[in-house]
Amino acid sequence: MSRPDGVSPRARVRRLPERAHYDRETIHAILDAALICHVGISREDGPLVVPTLFGRIDDTIYLHGSVASGNLRTMRTGAEVCVTATIVDGLVLARSLFNSSMNYRSAVVFGRTRQVTDPEERDRALRAISDHILPGRWEDARQPNRTEDLQTAIVAVDIDEASAKIRNWGVGDEPEDLALGVWAGVVPLRLVAGEPEPDPGLPPGTEVPGYLDGWLS
Amino acid sequence: MSRPDGVSPRARVRRLPERAHYDRETIHAILDAALICHVGISREDGPLVVPTLFGRIDDTIYLHGSVASGNLRTMRTGAEVCVTATIVDGLVLARSLFNSSMNYRSAVVFGRTRQVTDPEERDRALRAISDHILPGRWEDARQPNRTEDLQTAIVAVDIDEASAKIRNWGVGDEPEDLALGVWAGVVPLRLVAGEPEPDPGLPPGTEVPGYLDGWLS
Repeated sequence: MSRPDGVSPRARVRRLPERAHYDRETIHAILDAALICHVGISREDGPLVVPTLFGRIDDTIYLHGSVASGNLRTMRTGAEVCVTATIVDGLVLARSLFNSSMNYRSAVVFGRTRQVTDPEERDRALRAISDHILPGRWEDARQPNRTEDLQTAIVAVDIDEASAKIRNWGVGDEPEDLALGVWAGVVPLRLVAGEPEPDPGLPPGTEVPGYLDGWLS
Repeated sequence: MSRPDGVSPRARVRRLPERAHYDRETIHAILDAALICHVGISREDGPLVVPTLFGRIDDTIYLHGSVASGNLRTMRTGAEVCVTATIVDGLVLARSLFNSSMNYRSAVVFGRTRQVTDPEERDRALRAISDHILPGRWEDARQPNRTEDLQTAIVAVDIDEASAKIRNWGVGDEPEDLALGVWAGVVPLRLVAGEPEPDPGLPPGTEVPGYLDGWLS
């Protein structure tokens, strides 16, 4: 993990440095709080950005997908990627449009992908991806069998070049705008779950598992 | 806008074609429903993916930022970018982890950026970005002045190479997993607003504007 004094050029936040963080704890916390990430790959005809699920163990991000996926094929051979996870926390409505903004947390990780082939690391990676979305599900649902394992590509990206940006404060208006009769403030935003929709094939009365409580509260 | 019969190679969805859409209406609807997008740029040392606000007018996406931003500087000179907007709609909990998934809508747009310099187009673009987040705010808040305009870079990306992916159905389990005693179904997810937090400098009793109702209902 790079520290402020040793941050690599591409990981350094140049704009709005008051929002920048480089410490491991902050970057891990943002990655863990984001449900999905967006992965960037440079292709011959330009960049490609795809949304995907992911998991984290210590300083490693794990991505998975079908062995038939072209992007996974590229990543399995070792590709430079950028993994960005963003959480939108609120609308920041200043009295001027220029000073209006968003509250957000984002983590940007740069690295080269590595194919994960070791059976134990693959198992840990798939479990980390499952736990990232919904802790408790891995133990409850049916775990991957041999056929499914053969269809799943897993790649790792080490979190050693990374930065985070956080904006988590109120409006910053120009003094001369304070007298405008415009409402100003922050509208907090968060991703919440609605009522679970049981599969029609479930026996009537099958209870929603307790590990969903974190999403449903 | 590319049609299925004339989709460019980089815009064609190769994996899970049953989730792919190429029609203008679907791509516009996803862009309009997403609060932010993730923009990918290929740099010499690898790809970069940054979250950002955006607006859309017809077949054009507008991005803005500070003229001091290095990424905006790159985009102002004309860069190949990939703009991806993703909305997470739910957790799809199948009885097996392999068949578990997410419900989501994502739009991926490829194009070359064009700097927006025409004052009228700049005005329309900034308004589109404001309207994208919160219709009604543009008319209420103070609009950009000359100094602020000079500090703002705006770039356009035409939506003519684009694709969308949508998954919006229930679980698809293996027949042999149906008898497992595991809860299965969809947990819908959505981004909602909490109680607005007024700026401490507001005169007491300043009412929350009615155009926030869409977020607060």
